[in-house]
Amino acid sequence: MLFKVEMTVIPPAHLSEDEFNAIKLKEKNYAQELQKSGIWLHLWRVAGLYANVSIFEVKDNQHLHDVLMGLPLYPYMTISVTPLCQHPSSIK
Amino acid sequence: MLFKVEMTVIPPAHLSEDEFNAIKLKEKNYAQELQKSGIWLHLWRVAGLYANVSIFEVKDNQHLHDVLMGLPLYPYMTISVTPLCQHPSSIK
Amino acid sequence: MLFKVEMTVIPPAHLSEDEFNAIKLKEKNYAQELQKSGIWLHLWRVAGLYANVSIFEVKDNQHLHDVLMGLPLYPYMTISVTPLCQHPSSIK
Amino acid sequence: MLFKVEMTVIPPAHLSEDEFNAIKLKEKNYAQELQKSGIWLHLWRVAGLYANVSIFEVKDNQHLHDVLMGLPLYPYMTISVTPLCQHPSSIK
Amino acid sequence: MLFKVEMTVIPPAHLSEDEFNAIKLKEKNYAQELQKSGIWLHLWRVAGLYANVSIFEVKDNQHLHDVLMGLPLYPYMTISVTPLCQHPSSIK
Amino acid sequence: MLFKVEMTVIPPAHLSEDEFNAIKLKEKNYAQELQKSGIWLHLWRVAGLYANVSIFEVKDNQHLHDVLMGLPLYPYMTISVTPLCQHPSSIK
Amino acid sequence: MLFKVEMTVIPPAHLSEDEFNAIKLKEKNYAQELQKSGIWLHLWRVAGLYANVSIFEVKDNQHLHDVLMGLPLYPYMTISVTPLCQHPSSIK
Amino acid sequence: MLFKVEMTVIPPAHLSEDEFNAIKLKEKNYAQELQKSGIWLHLWRVAGLYANVSIFEVKDNQHLHDVLMGLPLYPYMTISVTPLCQHPSSIK
Amino acid sequence: MLFKVEMTVIPPAHLSEDEFNAIKLKEKNYAQELQKSGIWLHLWRVAGLYANVSIFEVKDNQHLHDVLMGLPLYPYMTISVTPLCQHPSSIK
Amino acid sequence: MLFKVEMTVIPPAHLSEDEFNAIKLKEKNYAQELQKSGIWLHLWRVAGLYANVSIFEVKDNQHLHDVLMGLPLYPYMTISVTPLCQHPSSIK
Repeated sequence: MLFKVEMTVIPPAHLSEDEFNAIKLKEKNYAQELQKSGIWLHLWRVAGLYANVSIFEVKDNQHLHDVLMGLPLYPYMTISVTPLCQHPSSIK
Repeated sequence: MLFKVEMTVIPPAHLSEDEFNAIKLKEKNYAQELQKSGIWLHLWRVAGLYANVSIFEVKDNQHLHDVLMGLPLYPYMTISVTPLCQHPSSIK
Repeated sequence: MLFKVEMTVIPPAHLSEDEFNAIKLKEKNYAQELQKSGIWLHLWRVAGLYANVSIFEVKDNQHLHDVLMGLPLYPYMTISVTPLCQHPSSIK
Repeated sequence: MLFKVEMTVIPPAHLSEDEFNAIKLKEKNYAQELQKSGIWLHLWRVAGLYANVSIFEVKDNQHLHDVLMGLPLYPYMTISVTPLCQHPSSIK
Repeated sequence: MLFKVEMTVIPPAHLSEDEFNAIKLKEKNYAQELQKSGIWLHLWRVAGLYANVSIFEVKDNQHLHDVLMGLPLYPYMTISVTPLCQHPSSIK
Repeated sequence: MLFKVEMTVIPPAHLSEDEFNAIKLKEKNYAQELQKSGIWLHLWRVAGLYANVSIFEVKDNQHLHDVLMGLPLYPYMTISVTPLCQHPSSIK
Repeated sequence: MLFKVEMTVIPPAHLSEDEFNAIKLKEKNYAQELQKSGIWLHLWRVAGLYANVSIFEVKDNQHLHDVLMGLPLYPYMTISVTPLCQHPSSIK
Repeated sequence: MLFKVEMTVIPPAHLSEDEFNAIKLKEKNYAQELQKSGIWLHLWRVAGLYANVSIFEVKDNQHLHDVLMGLPLYPYMTISVTPLCQHPSSIK
Repeated sequence: MLFKVEMTVIPPAHLSEDEFNAIKLKEKNYAQELQKSGIWLHLWRVAGLYANVSIFEVKDNQHLHDVLMGLPLYPYMTISVTPLCQHPSSIK
Repeated sequence: MLFKVEMTVIPPAHLSEDEFNAIKLKEKNYAQELQKSGIWLHLWRVAGLYANVSIFEVKDNQHLHDVLMGLPLYPYMTISVTPLCQHPSSIK
């Protein structure tokens, strides 16, 4: 089951650059594990913004929730979730 | 070069069902040709809405414009365009 | 899998009262069948508005989409969809 | 009398994790008492967000106000309130 | 139980002036009956707009809904509803 | 001359609970004096929110401004002002 | 007593150019009478838009309402009203 | 050349009352000089808000920009700018 | 003096394709004359939309207004106007 | 390939004036280098605001992203990006 998720990062003013870089490194590892396991299907940067457009393939809403709550950057992001399904004109 | 395009169809009140179905058939053929040629990379339906989330791979902004202007449903849609690029955490 | 769906009806100016009543009757039958089958779990009227708040229990996003597309009033409504899951403080 | 209440938590920057966890524990207890007493009728998590969709059954507007003002997380939430009533197509 | 209700009238283009005046007369009678019965507690015009600010005293959400659905101008208005209760600084 | 005023309180993070309570006590006294003098005609709490709906009867815009600027909670509120007048269907 | 009023004209599709010109001529005469009588104190065009920014000097809210309701273009405009008063830094 | 400028002051939390009063005094002097020189043509307080509606008469866009950037309160305000011109119904 | 003007065309439902094409041809001629005379400095299409971003160089606000009001497509467009000036980091 | 980019600077409260001036100087140098190299094609100040309207000529979305991410003021700005292309009425 597919979801489009859009995330915008708002770097926290109260963290040092080192602390924030440590969180970003964890985020990168987490994102790459989920990509390898086929859950984080697509991950694109929005040109010019500290934001991404992502497609997740998950078992259900709960699965999506758990995956997103595990994002190390979650406390520093705004997130929007859009459930997707098969388009009748898609050839896939 | 990738773009996210979101389209929402607003069926016109002044067309008959037959006229509108004819346009939708043209739209389907147009969408499938563009998918086969690798330009319309992804096409998903938004669950519950007469809307889609799409990813286009085009040569440049002009190419994207020409492709979208050719949509048979273009006069009956609202469209938003978001330029995408490589995400540093993407493994692709 | 649960979704909150909010629907607001915008009665069409180009239908006669009889035509619109016929559609509303179909909508009522459709809504009651889906309630009996356990898919349309809750259906409340928003006080003062021609609108409802609903909870659907469906198999997946595609199932939700198909159920909503089947609403006889679909062409005369605006719809918003919110995926739900278990709340850690819920006792159910 | 039913109300839909939507709550979004905005964790305060000036509290330590321990302090905030203590408040969240009180919130959980409060929420579970109200659920057992039949006032907090439904409580769902919004997938991907630190937010919930709730249905309250209360005696009147004042009762709803007093219940919401008692939420330990109240100072750290945005809240929207929608009065509900019987839907003519509901089978309940 | 009190509610603030704000109504804005959008005169319909497809009615003749006579037809619309007939509806406005019915609305006036309906509004005055509800004021005499103590349900429509306050009714003010918003200066410069075809809109009002009203306070209703009703038994419950359902009662409010039934009263508002009975407004002859209902199909030609946008409405917003806000549940009110006792303010701790009020001397009434 | 009547105005609807809506106020939403945003408690300041930089004040202690005692300091803020002292301001709220001043606000209550100020609100009750203005009610007794017939200027603050109505004062209702919005159910579920730290907000009120008020009706002021003042001599002119300047009078309204001076009264609102005198609110001890003024620096911690957002305010919206709507000028009101006689509604042709009002029986008062 | 001063009010800023902003008006945007939305020409009606169902009137002929002659009919609309006749209304605009009435509007011009009405606007000029009110300017001569000192009620419509200032009238500026917003550059590039079919809209104006106006200052009215009226006795009270009711007076403003009656003046605005008398505008021949009133049914074809959106209007916003802002009550003004003396600024402490004004030298007038 | 005329511009409407609307300014809303957001008092900074990090300044003491004395520091902020010193800036407000500078602002008052600056505003009065510009009024005397015929540049700040009108200055009205919005009733109930820490905001003003102003009309500036300047040589060009650059002149307006320089005048506004010189406002001592500029860092603590949100500003909106609307270019104005002659209204065909104005008698001035 | 420079202004950014953004225009979005909303094709009118009540015109035939021939009628609308005739207006678009006039628009093209008008736009090209203004470009040749140095008034319409830049004209870009927004990729994927029936919209443009334009830069006008005019004598004053009145000049801009007259130029925009002369657009043959003016009745079928929404327009936003932003006054520009010299940027301190510009090398031009 | 052209993009319109709009930037609004929000000066950070936690930096000293000297620290912020140092960043602004870096920004100026960076902006002037990009202008000289033909990438930052146009740079205008929005009159009255700490904001600019810019036109970038870049190779692709990625190039635009890299250029914008390099802005020394990037952490203190909100940015919007609009892809542009050839307008059929442009004479360039």
